[in-house]
Amino acid sequence: MSDLQVVVQEITDEMQAMPNRGEVATYIPELAGVDPNQFALVVVDAQGNVAAGGDADVPFSIQSISKVFTLTLALGKFGDRLWERVGREPSGSRFNSIVQLESEHGIPRNPFINAGAIAVTDAIVAGHQPREALGEILRFMQFLAADDSIYIDHKVAASEARTGFRNAALANYMKSYGVIDGPVDYALGVYFHHCAIAMSCRQLAMAGRFLAHFGANPSTILPVVTPERARRINALMLTCGHYDGSGEFAYRVGLPGKSGVGGGILAIAPGKASIAVWSPGLDVSGNSKRGRLALERLSKRMEWSIFGA
Amino acid sequence: MSDLQVVVQEITDEMQAMPNRGEVATYIPELAGVDPNQFALVVVDAQGNVAAGGDADVPFSIQSISKVFTLTLALGKFGDRLWERVGREPSGSRFNSIVQLESEHGIPRNPFINAGAIAVTDAIVAGHQPREALGEILRFMQFLAADDSIYIDHKVAASEARTGFRNAALANYMKSYGVIDGPVDYALGVYFHHCAIAMSCRQLAMAGRFLAHFGANPSTILPVVTPERARRINALMLTCGHYDGSGEFAYRVGLPGKSGVGGGILAIAPGKASIAVWSPGLDVSGNSKRGRLALERLSKRMEWSIFGA
Amino acid sequence: MSDLQVVVQEITDEMQAMPNRGEVATYIPELAGVDPNQFALVVVDAQGNVAAGGDADVPFSIQSISKVFTLTLALGKFGDRLWERVGREPSGSRFNSIVQLESEHGIPRNPFINAGAIAVTDAIVAGHQPREALGEILRFMQFLAADDSIYIDHKVAASEARTGFRNAALANYMKSYGVIDGPVDYALGVYFHHCAIAMSCRQLAMAGRFLAHFGANPSTILPVVTPERARRINALMLTCGHYDGSGEFAYRVGLPGKSGVGGGILAIAPGKASIAVWSPGLDVSGNSKRGRLALERLSKRMEWSIFGA
Amino acid sequence: MSDLQVVVQEITDEMQAMPNRGEVATYIPELAGVDPNQFALVVVDAQGNVAAGGDADVPFSIQSISKVFTLTLALGKFGDRLWERVGREPSGSRFNSIVQLESEHGIPRNPFINAGAIAVTDAIVAGHQPREALGEILRFMQFLAADDSIYIDHKVAASEARTGFRNAALANYMKSYGVIDGPVDYALGVYFHHCAIAMSCRQLAMAGRFLAHFGANPSTILPVVTPERARRINALMLTCGHYDGSGEFAYRVGLPGKSGVGGGILAIAPGKASIAVWSPGLDVSGNSKRGRLALERLSKRMEWSIFGA
Repeated sequence: MSDLQVVVQEITDEMQAMPNRGEVATYIPELAGVDPNQFALVVVDAQGNVAAGGDADVPFSIQSISKVFTLTLALGKFGDRLWERVGREPSGSRFNSIVQLESEHGIPRNPFINAGAIAVTDAIVAGHQPREALGEILRFMQFLAADDSIYIDHKVAASEARTGFRNAALANYMKSYGVIDGPVDYALGVYFHHCAIAMSCRQLAMAGRFLAHFGANPSTILPVVTPERARRINALMLTCGHYDGSGEFAYRVGLPGKSGVGGGILAIAPGKASIAVWSPGLDVSGNSKRGRLALERLSKRMEWSIFGA
Repeated sequence: MSDLQVVVQEITDEMQAMPNRGEVATYIPELAGVDPNQFALVVVDAQGNVAAGGDADVPFSIQSISKVFTLTLALGKFGDRLWERVGREPSGSRFNSIVQLESEHGIPRNPFINAGAIAVTDAIVAGHQPREALGEILRFMQFLAADDSIYIDHKVAASEARTGFRNAALANYMKSYGVIDGPVDYALGVYFHHCAIAMSCRQLAMAGRFLAHFGANPSTILPVVTPERARRINALMLTCGHYDGSGEFAYRVGLPGKSGVGGGILAIAPGKASIAVWSPGLDVSGNSKRGRLALERLSKRMEWSIFGA
Repeated sequence: MSDLQVVVQEITDEMQAMPNRGEVATYIPELAGVDPNQFALVVVDAQGNVAAGGDADVPFSIQSISKVFTLTLALGKFGDRLWERVGREPSGSRFNSIVQLESEHGIPRNPFINAGAIAVTDAIVAGHQPREALGEILRFMQFLAADDSIYIDHKVAASEARTGFRNAALANYMKSYGVIDGPVDYALGVYFHHCAIAMSCRQLAMAGRFLAHFGANPSTILPVVTPERARRINALMLTCGHYDGSGEFAYRVGLPGKSGVGGGILAIAPGKASIAVWSPGLDVSGNSKRGRLALERLSKRMEWSIFGA
Repeated sequence: MSDLQVVVQEITDEMQAMPNRGEVATYIPELAGVDPNQFALVVVDAQGNVAAGGDADVPFSIQSISKVFTLTLALGKFGDRLWERVGREPSGSRFNSIVQLESEHGIPRNPFINAGAIAVTDAIVAGHQPREALGEILRFMQFLAADDSIYIDHKVAASEARTGFRNAALANYMKSYGVIDGPVDYALGVYFHHCAIAMSCRQLAMAGRFLAHFGANPSTILPVVTPERARRINALMLTCGHYDGSGEFAYRVGLPGKSGVGGGILAIAPGKASIAVWSPGLDVSGNSKRGRLALERLSKRMEWSIFGA
């Protein structure tokens, strides 16, 4: 067993022995019903070695982690023009705050808060039918993970749509400023569905490889993005990836990461590894509690912090 | 000439050829009168090699860069108890905003906005006379830079005190919540004076070495802080070091850094180098315009970005 | 000619001689196309005497003035339970601000800002079809004005609905907090339509009589509301009737009033008269510029200020 | 006994029979130690008749009620130029909020929130020594009440100064915008002292007569202010006199009024009476609980509401 494999197993054991004290998201029944005791940690390194612990092949709702991939897709289509409709600064606010929008003319602070991700989704839709845009996002995920079994959980999407009034408020608000181009319902519909993509930690870690390796999957030759763009997406994940818990994540884990309310986190050790962790219980900022702790330990034991090992 | 020396000289030449389009800070005469054409860049690597370009030995007012060192000093005295009075999250606001304080019970978001730095300064004062506390800070700077000629510019400090009503507002506001322990005037007086420390880029780059090298100056054996604390200070510099331009700095430069309104920036390439740059013209967020650009080019050419080279 | 008739004609002449310097609302074509030179002033006193000046019989879009009547209707149905979903304090903000909602759990500050009026409209819908609720509101207006020719301008309503993203944001936001009971689209649809009611100043002044006369139309015996409720609606009009220009209106005019973006204002001189004025040009707070000035002069010359004549 | 006398005694009896459920202000010992069971109600009518109930001659700390008189004094000196430094709109915020100042360039919303009253006090100081300005304010109060025994409670003033960090924050903040002309300490010192003026309900009701009677004390010939200015001060008291409880006070009582944290309220029935009430227990908005209830009953029984009797 490699060192990495040993560390991943150790941490998995430690986490599984620990009561999952965080609260599972309860705003839709599909998330509220998830077994809180599940845990998974998967690391893919530069050589393509996979170290997996726990429930590594159980699919879960990736939720906001999808925002990393829709941002990547939208940057591929629009380039830096995308930044005319969304900023690049930490918000200092909850994921769904609308206050900042009012003082900044409807331009969301960054692509990882809900408003920003909806604006990015609207850019992807750009005149297409929602179904087409959604298909493109899903195929992109399947391509990145090299796994066609990745799917959208339509029950989750339907629940999100049924209860997503706050997101509808954000979208309509941006529309009132002209930040959303297309129909509000299109952007929202696609947004609710890409947040409802289900993936396992194994699939998620595979999908994140291009961010760890200068924009290209190391096991293929095809680049996904330029090295500079990969760096910049990583920078955004570090400063904005965990809402009003982003500073804390940087401080404790020291890796770019993006969390989802389903309990998953994608983290990147640049040049070294793509990491996916999943544990459904959340902390007060809405980020996975055991997930962050697992990443803190992994970063420390592997000496992967980007702030000096 | 080493590669590093060549790159530093190249960038210095490029910056000196460029009109300094930013605006020099004008709120006190001592800053308003600084020649905007000056530029300096100094890099100290792990081996102690120094690459210097431009006005590397001209002292300038380090202003908010001092906050990195007062934070280090206060953490040494208080350890993690310091975090009871100051947060670790980006503020999403200007350096001197008071709005966030009202909604968060007087606890400043992080130690690098003015309110946070004043709270940290109050912790350093902690029952001592202002003169003693200030002496301790100055000696700490001299020790880190191994240079006893570093001094406080008392004319700058006096001007800051005379016009620092906004900082007085922040301090009194925190005092009303009990976040400031000692007399408001003590904390403010010491704060105005440590912001008025004058250093050259050479001195500043020397003083930053412990952050680049796991908490210890590589040329001595004495550790300044633990490796973990150095990492964490770097993380704070990355997420909070440039006020509401922190995301942009991370996105473009990809290095932890702390700017001052005097036009200086201290940046850290963890494991590789301590970097100081100075150019008095500022951008809209109050950060050095040519300074950031110089760091962006340095980070790119040396492949030092922490987000993947 | 009575004194009142003389004063009304004087003021009408003065206003018609004055260039209409305010800006006509332009967010929908139906309002943007209104001739800005029109002016009307109608006063109905306790004895039922009508003093009319200018374009007193030209119907205009009453817009937010309708909120006074929907509030009256909703209070009639729900009594003080209505105040569980809407406050009674001035907002200190623009008519369509969403910031206050975030810090106060989705409860709008008062029934006269857009969010509050939408919440009141939702209470009126209360399980009925939008068409039924709207019919009830229109019949109530016709009853109060004793004039069946009052109608809804469906082109205005359609334009409002097509561009009302900010109101949709407010409604969805309140829905996310459970402040809106029914479907968001129902409340919004009825809201857009009651704001599109068209009335002349003569009709509007007639409809307001119950507020001037202890809750009853003086020319009939039927009470509309209790005397106490009439007083309280007047109090709300005074403190909240002109958004962030409410203090200014109280200061200058000294009468309870409610303005609409169509340029109309309903004002009440308690115990003395119901007043309607209309002039399409608006000031920076979105209130009729010549309308307010006309009321200021009327209140002064008739010695009707509630703050001491 | 007159009707008025009967009503005043009735209400006094009712209030004294009622447990004083509000909380006495506790931020300084001088207020915290006041006996919460005290109650007084004094009404002076146009004919100079005085109806008094309860502890009508016990002096209490008038606190923010003094803001009505300093506003009057400052308007006398500066006229409408005073409005360049303070607004006339309800704030929608707590008495000591600083948030609004940040978004509105340091101009306080109205003269009755703390920031506004400090700005008004600075205008009164205007180049004089604090002692002189304070003497002028005190003499003005004594003149209005025709009672030289009114005094400043220096122990209260000293306590306010010792704990007034939030007010110091407001003052320094305004100073940073140039809204305060003189030294911050001068304005604050005078402010703390005029809030510490001690008066009985009898004295306070006498001092308020000019507001009830078109700017002049009915028992003398000397006008204090013009009738228009009296009306306008009344309008400000109605819209802004009770912080974020101003709407509620207008809704329930229907009279212009100004409350103080010492439990006093001055209310004006224009053309009819000047009213002072005192009961130390406060509601959540910091206004006297039994005091407001007493005024609600008085206004109703005497049919004095300005919104229609």
